[in-house]
Amino acid sequence: MSDSETMTIPTYEDMLAAHERIRPHIRRTPVRTSDYLNEVTGAQLFFKCENFQEPGAFKIRGAANAVFGLGEAQAKKGVATHSSGNHASCLSYAAMRRGIPCHVVMPRTAPQAKKDTVRRYGGKITECEPSTSAREAAFARVQAETGADFVHPYNDPRVIAGQGTCAREFLEQTDGLDIVMAPIGGGGMISGTCLTVATLAPETRVIAAEPEQADDACRSFRAGRIIADDAPKSIADGLLVPLRELTWHFVSTRVADILTASEGEIVEAMKLAWKHLRVVIEPSSAVPLATILKTPDRFAGKRVGVILTGGNVDLDRLPWMQG
Amino acid sequence: MSDSETMTIPTYEDMLAAHERIRPHIRRTPVRTSDYLNEVTGAQLFFKCENFQEPGAFKIRGAANAVFGLGEAQAKKGVATHSSGNHASCLSYAAMRRGIPCHVVMPRTAPQAKKDTVRRYGGKITECEPSTSAREAAFARVQAETGADFVHPYNDPRVIAGQGTCAREFLEQTDGLDIVMAPIGGGGMISGTCLTVATLAPETRVIAAEPEQADDACRSFRAGRIIADDAPKSIADGLLVPLRELTWHFVSTRVADILTASEGEIVEAMKLAWKHLRVVIEPSSAVPLATILKTPDRFAGKRVGVILTGGNVDLDRLPWMQG
Repeated sequence: MSDSETMTIPTYEDMLAAHERIRPHIRRTPVRTSDYLNEVTGAQLFFKCENFQEPGAFKIRGAANAVFGLGEAQAKKGVATHSSGNHASCLSYAAMRRGIPCHVVMPRTAPQAKKDTVRRYGGKITECEPSTSAREAAFARVQAETGADFVHPYNDPRVIAGQGTCAREFLEQTDGLDIVMAPIGGGGMISGTCLTVATLAPETRVIAAEPEQADDACRSFRAGRIIADDAPKSIADGLLVPLRELTWHFVSTRVADILTASEGEIVEAMKLAWKHLRVVIEPSSAVPLATILKTPDRFAGKRVGVILTGGNVDLDRLPWMQG
Repeated sequence: MSDSETMTIPTYEDMLAAHERIRPHIRRTPVRTSDYLNEVTGAQLFFKCENFQEPGAFKIRGAANAVFGLGEAQAKKGVATHSSGNHASCLSYAAMRRGIPCHVVMPRTAPQAKKDTVRRYGGKITECEPSTSAREAAFARVQAETGADFVHPYNDPRVIAGQGTCAREFLEQTDGLDIVMAPIGGGGMISGTCLTVATLAPETRVIAAEPEQADDACRSFRAGRIIADDAPKSIADGLLVPLRELTWHFVSTRVADILTASEGEIVEAMKLAWKHLRVVIEPSSAVPLATILKTPDRFAGKRVGVILTGGNVDLDRLPWMQG
C-alpha cells in the first residue's frame, strides 16, 4: 500500500494534466436545473450529473487518471484495489479501456450486483472474508503475485487530481458559483474540488455534506484532527469510509463547512431529485440537497453547484418503498 | 373546436419561427448515450432527454408556440384545453410564463397528482364527468364564457410546428441520424419530427413506436385510413388517443414504419433506461427502446435517435414493483 511519507499533495497543474489525459474516457456531463427546486430553496441550484458517466459515478475521473498515467511496464502488470463500490467498477472500466488487468479484492458478502458490475467491466475479483485483516491479507497476496499498482479509492494524488476535473467543467458550464457542494466520505471528490476551486475560483466556497449517522468528517473538521468511526451505518453507503492524510489536507485547509442530514432527510431529498430533476441518483448523491433543504437560509440568493456523484441503485429496492 | 376545413398543414418555416418564439421558454435538452445499450442492441443509440423540460415533457414546445404566438387581444382571454396529461400541465406552464389564463377541462376522476401539477402552474381546472359528451359540454361552456383559444394536444398546426423543434436540435446535436424514433399516440411529436426531418435530413427514416394494446396508429398506417379505438388500455398512458386529420397527414405520407411492443416489453425497457441511462422516464417514453430491443436486426449498425418524451411518473407506484 502507498506510504503517507511518499505521498505528495496534487497540484492544479496535475489536475490540468489529468483532464487532458482522461478526456477521451469520460463524459463532460450536463448540468441540470429545476425551477421548482429553486423556488423551494430560494437558491439558484445547479446539478452536475456525474451519475451520467458510463459506469455511473464520478470515480471514473480519478480511476482513468491513474490507469492512463501508468508507464507501459507497470501498465502490463495492471492495477488493483479493494472496494465494493463505485471505485472498483470505475477502475475496472478504465483498465478495460486500456486493455490491462484490474484486480479487485472484495468481501465475499458483497452484493451480487456489485460483483457482476466489476466482472462486466473485466475486473478480476478475489473474494475475502468480511474483515479488515482478511482484506489486507488478501490484498497483499494479490499485489505480491501480480505486481499490480495499488489505486486507493481516494487517498492517492492521481485520484484526487482526476476528481478535480469535475469542478473545472462545472465552473465553465455555470459561469461561476458562490458555493460548490459534494457529499463527503473519504473526501476524494471534495479534495479535488478544493484543488480546482482554489485556483480557478478562490471566492467560491466548498461545502461538504455528510450523513448524520456517519459524520466522522464533520467531527474531524470541528476537532482539527482525523476521527475515524468504526463501521458507521447509513443508507448513503458510498460515504462510510474515513478521511485519510491527503484528503485531510484539503478538508482541514480549504473546506468552508461540513453539514449533515438525517437518514429520512436524505431519502426525502433523493426522491425530490428523482421527481424534479428526473435523474436517477444514489442516496449518497442526495446528501447535499438534503442539507440545503434543511438550512435554506444559508443558501438563499446564492448560486449553488451540487455534484450528483453517482447513480447506481437497486431499482427493485428503493428506500422510500421500504419500511 | 378547430374545424378540419380551416386547418393548414404546418411548414418547415413554421417550425423555424416556432423555435425562435419558444427558445426562452424551453430547454435545449441534452442527448444521452450508453455503451451498454449500444452493446446489447448492436446499434448506436442517442436519447434526447425531453423529460428534462421544466414540466417534464416535450409538450412544452407545442404549448409554448401556441401561447406565445397569440395576439395581445386573444392572449388576454387566455387558452383552454381538455387533457389530463402532460399537455395540460405544459399549456398551464406556458400560459403562466406569459401571464395569461389557462383553462383545463378534466374528468373529476383524474389522478390528484395531475390536478395538483396543473394548479401549481396556475391552470384553472373545470371538472366534468368522465365521458366524452360531458367533457365536450363542459369545454363548450368554458370556451363560451371565457373566449379562450382552444389549443388541441396535437391536432393543431402550432403544436405540431412546436414539437418539430425537438428534431432540429437532435439532428444538430448528433451530426445526423439514420433513424429517428418517437412513441405515437395522437401523433403530434411524430408529425413535428416528420416535418423537420423532411427538409433537414430527407434520408433519415422516421419510425414510430406504439403499445400493442393501443395499436390504432399502427393499424391505421397499414389500412391507409384512420382507425380510432374505443378506450384502449396500456401502461403507456400518454399514447391512448387516436390520430386526427393533421397528424394523419404526416403519418400517412412520411412515416417509414410503426412498430409495437407488449406491456411487459415496455416495462422492461423502461427499467433498463432508468438503470443504464440513469434518467427517469415515463412508460410511454420507453416504447421505442422496447421495439429496438425486440427487433435489433432492424437497427444494428445504424445511428438511431430516440426521443425520450416525458418523465412524469408516480415514484410510489413503479410498474416493475407491482403484480
